[in-house]
Amino acid sequence: MTVIGLGNMGTALAAAFLERGHPTTVWNRSPEKAKALAERGAQVAATPEEAVTAAELVIACVLDYDALHTVLDPVADRLAGRALVNVTSGSPEQARDFRDWATARGATYLDGAIMTTPPGVGSPDMMFLYSGSQDTFTAHKETLDVLGDALFLGTDPAVASLYDAALLGLMWATFNGWLHGTALVGADQVAATEYTVLANRWLGGAVSGFLTRYAAQVDEGHYPGDDATVDVQIATIDHLIHAAADRGVDNALPELLKAGMEQAKAAGHGGDSYASVIEVMRGKGRANA
Amino acid sequence: MTVIGLGNMGTALAAAFLERGHPTTVWNRSPEKAKALAERGAQVAATPEEAVTAAELVIACVLDYDALHTVLDPVADRLAGRALVNVTSGSPEQARDFRDWATARGATYLDGAIMTTPPGVGSPDMMFLYSGSQDTFTAHKETLDVLGDALFLGTDPAVASLYDAALLGLMWATFNGWLHGTALVGADQVAATEYTVLANRWLGGAVSGFLTRYAAQVDEGHYPGDDATVDVQIATIDHLIHAAADRGVDNALPELLKAGMEQAKAAGHGGDSYASVIEVMRGKGRANA
Repeated sequence: MTVIGLGNMGTALAAAFLERGHPTTVWNRSPEKAKALAERGAQVAATPEEAVTAAELVIACVLDYDALHTVLDPVADRLAGRALVNVTSGSPEQARDFRDWATARGATYLDGAIMTTPPGVGSPDMMFLYSGSQDTFTAHKETLDVLGDALFLGTDPAVASLYDAALLGLMWATFNGWLHGTALVGADQVAATEYTVLANRWLGGAVSGFLTRYAAQVDEGHYPGDDATVDVQIATIDHLIHAAADRGVDNALPELLKAGMEQAKAAGHGGDSYASVIEVMRGKGRANA
Repeated sequence: MTVIGLGNMGTALAAAFLERGHPTTVWNRSPEKAKALAERGAQVAATPEEAVTAAELVIACVLDYDALHTVLDPVADRLAGRALVNVTSGSPEQARDFRDWATARGATYLDGAIMTTPPGVGSPDMMFLYSGSQDTFTAHKETLDVLGDALFLGTDPAVASLYDAALLGLMWATFNGWLHGTALVGADQVAATEYTVLANRWLGGAVSGFLTRYAAQVDEGHYPGDDATVDVQIATIDHLIHAAADRGVDNALPELLKAGMEQAKAAGHGGDSYASVIEVMRGKGRANA
């Protein structure tokens, strides 16, 4: 296959293919990025045209969609019959537009989102999300599995990047909740590494169990509060806010969480589960992006 | 042992002991709550005095510390020589004060935090956090393990409730990040249950791995940004904010997350890892609780 774009991530993708013995052609705007890969057996294409024509499977991993068009527009007439897998970060709408652009030129299109950092590439534990052409995914799944666990999310090419955005949002929110707690216990001399063993067990156990249960509630639009109600959690979060304020830890995050719970209560969900907070988070009408 | 307080949680604790064949005495202000437990073999104490004197190990699980004093103050002279395990929710400071109160009356004291809902009681997967008297913990660990995995966090009785607050804060932050993402993908007709399978895998895998790595960075006070820098994440979160705004999903949470990243950048951490955000979250001086 061909890998276009040799930033940290593109380099990791090409290296994973080479490590597993796959003939791999690479191209990068600055050719010096290809040197280390050439030493590991990569074919270095001199031009995007050479790169695109070197393999049926073309993986593009560049900075953004502007960079993508800069590279591929001049070689658009060489894309017919190729499978274009685009893991460039962008919006769901950019993915749909690019699918239209690529298929109009006779390529099949898969949009991808890489749910790990470059050192995680090559591990079957890491998720690589794809959406777009089901046939292309099926034909190349074995090859894509070299990079990580290749998961197909549907034929709408926007879905992979939508999941990407959602999962990153979950990650950042989790990071901040974890950092706040780490700062809180750290104020009383508990080491972050010590706290984090329990934090990870908590996330992977009880919290994960709640999410599974609440997901079913969200799909049903019905939020029975038989485990813990929004009312109870509003009372409980004050312990956190007071303990953190007492220790000089910034409370912007728990204050926002409490405000969300209070909005849910005001909307009649005081006796419902926490999942009912989604009702005040969505459906505010389509705003300007 | 004795269980004082038969709300949903106290009832679950007593039921777990009875299920494993432990002789259990229970007391509740409203005696009708004890009926179902009596049918399962519990001894029902007529008064707090009878409850406290019935066993060496006394577990208190009432609404709050006011309720705790209302029950125990009149029987304070019966506490000498008993092991008092208090799982009533409260602040770290309340736990310290109550340890002082109990030990002044000759009891040994363990403060506890139950990291599950009543249906989770009895599962060895669930964490029960204790801090205070190490001897009391050691002497009763086997009994406490009936309720869930009994973990000792240290001799400061405040630590269990501090962990409790921190872990609940992590849970709520994770809930909101998950709900935001669920609302986002839901706007494009992805079912919450479908998204959540991946969300849980993401949390338990890559995200958990980041937390472990970042915890070591926090303890070292050094945040090498070799996986993903704050600068990169600031650029990436805009994809989330735009996609959510486009779909009418409230962006208060990602806007707060972005603001935290921008504060970290302004403090010189643009090239550091996300863990550096803790530097702008803590150490703002001791505020009023």
